[in-house]
Amino acid sequence: MALIVQKFGGSSVADVGRIRRCARRIVDAKDAGHNVVVVVSAMGKTTDGLVELAREASSDPETGEASDAGPSKRELDMLLSTGERITIAAMAMVLHAMGHEAVSFTGRQIGMVTDDAHTRARIASVDADRMRAELEAGRIVVVAGFQGVTDAGEITTLGRGGSDTTAVAVAAALKADVCEIFTDVDGVYTTDPRLVPEARKLERISYDEMLEMASLGAKVMHSRAVEFGAKYEVPIHVRHSHRPDEGTLITKEVEKMEELQVTGVVLKPNLGRITLDNVPDSPGVAAKVFAHLAESGVVVDDIIQTVVGDGVATISFTVDHADLPDIKPMLDDIMGQIGGGHASIDVGFAKISAVGVGIRSHTSVASMMFKALAEGGVNIANITTSEIKISVIVDKGDGEKALQLVHGVLF
Amino acid sequence: MALIVQKFGGSSVADVGRIRRCARRIVDAKDAGHNVVVVVSAMGKTTDGLVELAREASSDPETGEASDAGPSKRELDMLLSTGERITIAAMAMVLHAMGHEAVSFTGRQIGMVTDDAHTRARIASVDADRMRAELEAGRIVVVAGFQGVTDAGEITTLGRGGSDTTAVAVAAALKADVCEIFTDVDGVYTTDPRLVPEARKLERISYDEMLEMASLGAKVMHSRAVEFGAKYEVPIHVRHSHRPDEGTLITKEVEKMEELQVTGVVLKPNLGRITLDNVPDSPGVAAKVFAHLAESGVVVDDIIQTVVGDGVATISFTVDHADLPDIKPMLDDIMGQIGGGHASIDVGFAKISAVGVGIRSHTSVASMMFKALAEGGVNIANITTSEIKISVIVDKGDGEKALQLVHGVLF
Repeated sequence: MALIVQKFGGSSVADVGRIRRCARRIVDAKDAGHNVVVVVSAMGKTTDGLVELAREASSDPETGEASDAGPSKRELDMLLSTGERITIAAMAMVLHAMGHEAVSFTGRQIGMVTDDAHTRARIASVDADRMRAELEAGRIVVVAGFQGVTDAGEITTLGRGGSDTTAVAVAAALKADVCEIFTDVDGVYTTDPRLVPEARKLERISYDEMLEMASLGAKVMHSRAVEFGAKYEVPIHVRHSHRPDEGTLITKEVEKMEELQVTGVVLKPNLGRITLDNVPDSPGVAAKVFAHLAESGVVVDDIIQTVVGDGVATISFTVDHADLPDIKPMLDDIMGQIGGGHASIDVGFAKISAVGVGIRSHTSVASMMFKALAEGGVNIANITTSEIKISVIVDKGDGEKALQLVHGVLF
Repeated sequence: MALIVQKFGGSSVADVGRIRRCARRIVDAKDAGHNVVVVVSAMGKTTDGLVELAREASSDPETGEASDAGPSKRELDMLLSTGERITIAAMAMVLHAMGHEAVSFTGRQIGMVTDDAHTRARIASVDADRMRAELEAGRIVVVAGFQGVTDAGEITTLGRGGSDTTAVAVAAALKADVCEIFTDVDGVYTTDPRLVPEARKLERISYDEMLEMASLGAKVMHSRAVEFGAKYEVPIHVRHSHRPDEGTLITKEVEKMEELQVTGVVLKPNLGRITLDNVPDSPGVAAKVFAHLAESGVVVDDIIQTVVGDGVATISFTVDHADLPDIKPMLDDIMGQIGGGHASIDVGFAKISAVGVGIRSHTSVASMMFKALAEGGVNIANITTSEIKISVIVDKGDGEKALQLVHGVLF
C-alpha cells in the first residue's frame, strides 16, 4: 500500500464532467489499496474571471481606467484563494456521489503556513497530522492548491502554478511514495512539441535537469515544485490527465536514463534586459541591487557583471517581461542607494538553453549549438553556462527558429 | 463620531457598478466622521450558482439523478462560504480605488466562532479586537457575512439570510451605535406591499414586534438578526440600498411609535403539519419529540398538544415545507423512542398573523380578524395566540386572500 498525492490542474477540473473523470483516477488508486491525497487547482477559467473582477473593481471609478498599481495584493489573494475552495468542495461531493469517503481542506486547514509575500508567498511549513488522521480513517483527502496562510492568519497565494508546489510540499510533508502531476501534456519532452514536432518524450529526468528546464521556460511544471521535490526527494510523475500512458518520472535516481548528452532544449520567449552602466566597482554594490529586487519578489533570470575599468562596472540582468512594471519604479531607488551610474531597460529578448548532465564534459555541445545558429543566420547577444546547461540570448523574433535549429542539431 | 455597521445584501452588490454605489454610501458615512464596518453577502446570483454546482457534483454519476441526501453539509459550507469572500475582496478594491483605506476579513479572521451545525450554524462569539484595531487605524473594515468557523477550524455558514445575523452580531461585539441593513425594500411595512398595495411603511417598530413579524415570514430581516439586536440592544435601521430616504428603525424604545393596536400583518405561505396521534400521555413525551428535532436544527413553527383521553394525546406541529425532507426520516426514530402512536404529515397550509403590542389588551382585534375571514369565505384550520400576536392557519390556496382581508379590516 502506497501513499500517493495526485494533482489535477485547472483544465482537468473545468466542469463537473471533467471532475468525475479525475475522480475515477483517484478511485482507481484508492481501490488498488493506496492512500490518496488530491490537490486541485481552480476550475477552468475561474482564476481568469476573478482576475478580471479584480481589474474592474480596482479601476478608476470615474474613468474606468485600470489602476497603475493594480489591486491590493492582500485583497487579490483573498479573492483568488476562493477558486480552489470551490473545486475541493465539488471534488469531495463527486467522490461522495461515487460512494467514497472524502474530505476537503483549505490551505489553512492543513497548516500550509507561508511568508507574507502576497501573490507569491513561499511555503514555510505544512502540518501533516490532520491529513494523516483522515487517511488513517480511510478517507480521500482533497486539498486546495495554490494557497496558504501566514502566521498572523492572512490568506496568501503561491503565484501561478503554485498548485504544483502545494502538491509536492504535501507529498514531502506526508513522505508520500509519489506525487503524480496530471496535466494537459503527457510528459516532459526534449523540447516544446508545439514548436518542434520532432520533440521526444523522456521516460525519466533528474531533478536538476528538470529544474533547469522548468526555470528556463518549459511549461510542464513550476520550478518551485521541482525544488521541493529535489529537497525532500519526492518522486514526481508527470502524466496526462485523460490518457492511461506512463508519463515522465522526475527523480534523484536516473539509472534508466537514456544515453543522451542533452536532455532537452527550452525556449524562454519574453525577456527584458536591465543594464546598470558606470556603477561604482566597490564591494557590496551587487548585493544592494539584488537585495532590493529580492525583497520585492522579482525573479532575476541571468546576471552578468563586467568591470570596465576606471573603478566602474556594468551590471546587467534579465527578467521576464511580466516583471518589468514592478522593476521600473525600483530602479531610481536602487541607483540612489548605490551612488552613481545609469539604468536602462531593453525589451525583446529570448533565451534558448540546452540542458543535460552530460553537457559540461562534452564541449562539442556548445560548438554544435553555435555553429547551427550561425548557419541559420541567428545572431547571439549573450552566452551563459552552468554545470548542466548552455544558454544563448537572441532577439525575441529569432526565438522559435533558434529553438528548432538547436534541437535539430542536438537530437 | 459614531460607529456604524452597514450591511449590503446580494442584489445590492451584484456587479462592480452596484458595489460602487454601495461604496459611495460607505464613504459618505466615513466622510461624515464615522467609523464604518461593512458586512456583505455574495454577489447577486453567486450563491444560486454554487448551490447548482453542488447539486450537479453530488448527483448520481451514472444517471445524473439528484442525490436524496443532498451534498455533504460540511462540503456545502466550504463551497458557499467562497461567495462572500469574493465580495469582500471586490468591495475593498473598490474602496481603495476611491482613495480610501479598507481591509477585508473572512468570518474566521474576525473570530466569528459558531457551533458545528453545518449550513445553519449558530454564533457563539465574535472577537472585536482585530476590527477595532483596524478602525482605530482609520480603515474601513469589510466583513464576509453568512460564515463562521468552529472551534476545530471547520468552516460553517449561518443559513440563508445569515448575513443580517453577521451584521448585528458584529455591531453587538463592537457596541456599534447603529446597524444599517441595506436591502431592496425601503423599510418594514404593515404587510407585504407586493401582496397588499395598501400596506404602509412603519417609522419605528420594537424588537419584539419585528421578531414576531420576521419569524412569521416577513422577508425584510432574518429573525436571528433581530434576536441579536434585542439581546444586545443594537438599534437596527432597515433602509433601501439605492434610495436616500429613512427606512424603519428597530429599537427597544418605541416613544415615537404610531398609535396602532396592530403593527403589521404577515403571511407565512408554505407550512407542513406533522400530527402524532395516540402517543402516550406521559411526562417527557413532548421533550423527547422536540429534543430530537432541535438536535437536527429543524425550526418548529407552532406546537399544539391536546389530551384526547384514555392516556393518549395528540401532538401536532407545523414546520416550513423546506424542512419536511429532513423531518421524514426522523419520524420513525421519534415514534420508536416514545413507544406508541402514529405519525402523519399534511402539506399545504399558510399562516396569517396580526402582530402588535396592543393586541392582548384589545380582544376586538381577534374578533375583527375572524369576522373578516368568515365574510370572505376563508376557513380557519387553527388559531394560536401569544402576547403580541394572533395567528390563524388556513389552506395555502387561501393565504393571500386571507392576508388582504385581515390587513383590510385592521388598517
